[in-house]
Amino acid sequence: MISEADIIFKYLKKLNLKKKETFNFENDGAFLKQKKNMEIVVTNDAITETVDFFQNDDPESIAQKIMTYNLSDLSSLGAIPYAYTMSLSLPKGINKSWLEKFTNKLLSLQKEFNIFLLGGDIGSANQIHISANFFGYVKKNLIIKRQSSKLGDSIWITGCIGESYIGLLIKQKKINIKPGFQNFFINKYLYPVPCMLGSSIVNFTNSAIDISDGFLGDLSKLLNKKLGADLLFSKIPFSKNTKHLIDQKIIDPNSLLTGGDDYQLIFTSQKKNDSIIANIAKKNNYSVHKVGTIINKKGIFLDGNKINDPAKSFQYFF
Amino acid sequence: MISEADIIFKYLKKLNLKKKETFNFENDGAFLKQKKNMEIVVTNDAITETVDFFQNDDPESIAQKIMTYNLSDLSSLGAIPYAYTMSLSLPKGINKSWLEKFTNKLLSLQKEFNIFLLGGDIGSANQIHISANFFGYVKKNLIIKRQSSKLGDSIWITGCIGESYIGLLIKQKKINIKPGFQNFFINKYLYPVPCMLGSSIVNFTNSAIDISDGFLGDLSKLLNKKLGADLLFSKIPFSKNTKHLIDQKIIDPNSLLTGGDDYQLIFTSQKKNDSIIANIAKKNNYSVHKVGTIINKKGIFLDGNKINDPAKSFQYFF
Repeated sequence: MISEADIIFKYLKKLNLKKKETFNFENDGAFLKQKKNMEIVVTNDAITETVDFFQNDDPESIAQKIMTYNLSDLSSLGAIPYAYTMSLSLPKGINKSWLEKFTNKLLSLQKEFNIFLLGGDIGSANQIHISANFFGYVKKNLIIKRQSSKLGDSIWITGCIGESYIGLLIKQKKINIKPGFQNFFINKYLYPVPCMLGSSIVNFTNSAIDISDGFLGDLSKLLNKKLGADLLFSKIPFSKNTKHLIDQKIIDPNSLLTGGDDYQLIFTSQKKNDSIIANIAKKNNYSVHKVGTIINKKGIFLDGNKINDPAKSFQYFF
Repeated sequence: MISEADIIFKYLKKLNLKKKETFNFENDGAFLKQKKNMEIVVTNDAITETVDFFQNDDPESIAQKIMTYNLSDLSSLGAIPYAYTMSLSLPKGINKSWLEKFTNKLLSLQKEFNIFLLGGDIGSANQIHISANFFGYVKKNLIIKRQSSKLGDSIWITGCIGESYIGLLIKQKKINIKPGFQNFFINKYLYPVPCMLGSSIVNFTNSAIDISDGFLGDLSKLLNKKLGADLLFSKIPFSKNTKHLIDQKIIDPNSLLTGGDDYQLIFTSQKKNDSIIANIAKKNNYSVHKVGTIINKKGIFLDGNKINDPAKSFQYFF
């Protein structure tokens, strides 16, 4: 068995990057640097074995998920990532190799996103359970909100949707495709990548959300009680691989609109900013697609037809 | 079954106290108010069913524990509590009555400690698992640290120690005492109360820690590599009820020095501040006891005898 001290000093300590705020993990807490003209935002996402990932999933995948779920939230708020706390509850079976892989993956993602671990908590549990709070900075008064899309706004999606959901279906053996294709989709499910465009578009964005419960369900959370969305199916971005599965009738494209956690952003911006948005995305190496417009009519309409029950699931409380 | 939306809107929403920072739980995160001349500190403590509390323990006790564990950390940093996030993982058996009791207890504690819920995460798990991040403010440059006690410092404890540990032994049926007495101790275990003296003594304190793993073990974390503690057993504060059990030889007083989570503070302060400390404590209605002195000799000494292995357990990473 591995002691708590071992977990901290051999595996976790490298993650504090010797930052002053962490007190070298020797205190009852950490502090957050305040910045002039910036707001500090906080997000919280937790993942649990058998709920958010499969038993025996690679520790690298688990590390990627807890990072992406939270970074994606920070991005949707318009925030630049800063640091995080992590509460780690581990069952007895966890061994040194698991801890090494898990923390090395966290370290490499920390480098990619320029963040560090402030501290946290370690305990035992009968399932792997990880809860993280991520902190970021947003320019004063520019935090992007969900329900503040405006009439006439363009609706944008980053990247492609549906791939992670297809990966999940393959893992669950609900669909069967050629082995060469399988890994593409399974990797999208196991190693979701956050779209960090949020902080670059804060000046031009009225509302944003990240896709964690399916595109249509999350889009409906952007609409306040009076407004709706008019979407064109032909504009919904699917990757070449996904299109291939749709063409082969292996997957129903409608299911891709409601399923899955893509960790892409949906955001709305005044129509007059369309080319600015396209330029900022290009400069930041993100693909964006304008998929529709905010309209003065409640509901979500796809090629003119109203969608019943777009939000199959419901998650709030951030 | 209760939906996520129900949990949020019927039970949790009242906890945001309609504070601006929470965005009414409609966003992907919250923000933290920055304050001039203050540091924002963060603590993280999680609790898990069958590890930190018994299956079927009252929801009020669970609420009290997640609050006290974190508030006590804030106090040991010298912080004034501000707000918290909470990640709630619940098994299927949780019902409306549980949620009502749990959140009502949180609300009443929020009022007592002047804090609110910023947001969080809800998920399912096969055990109750709650992780919280608590935020507080400390005057600039006055965050109290653990390992900065100074030679000659007086060592203080707040309140009495050992009661929660006795309560645990009773719950575990390891000791048997008169029913009238039992509730006193069991309540100390089920409903630990944080000692919030920390923010009042920041100007006079060199180091502090809260007792979450036993007095001696936690005291050893206050000592850096060169210093030790010289304690007088007669000065260790035990309540009248505890003394009665010691006199009756029902409990070994030594076990009370290493067991238990008292959520009292241990802190050190220059000897010349002794009367100031006593006065501040009195003004804030906390009892404090000077139990010893920081000495120039490694280790913890009780009535002159060195204690072997004071830290039976080891917990860091805040």
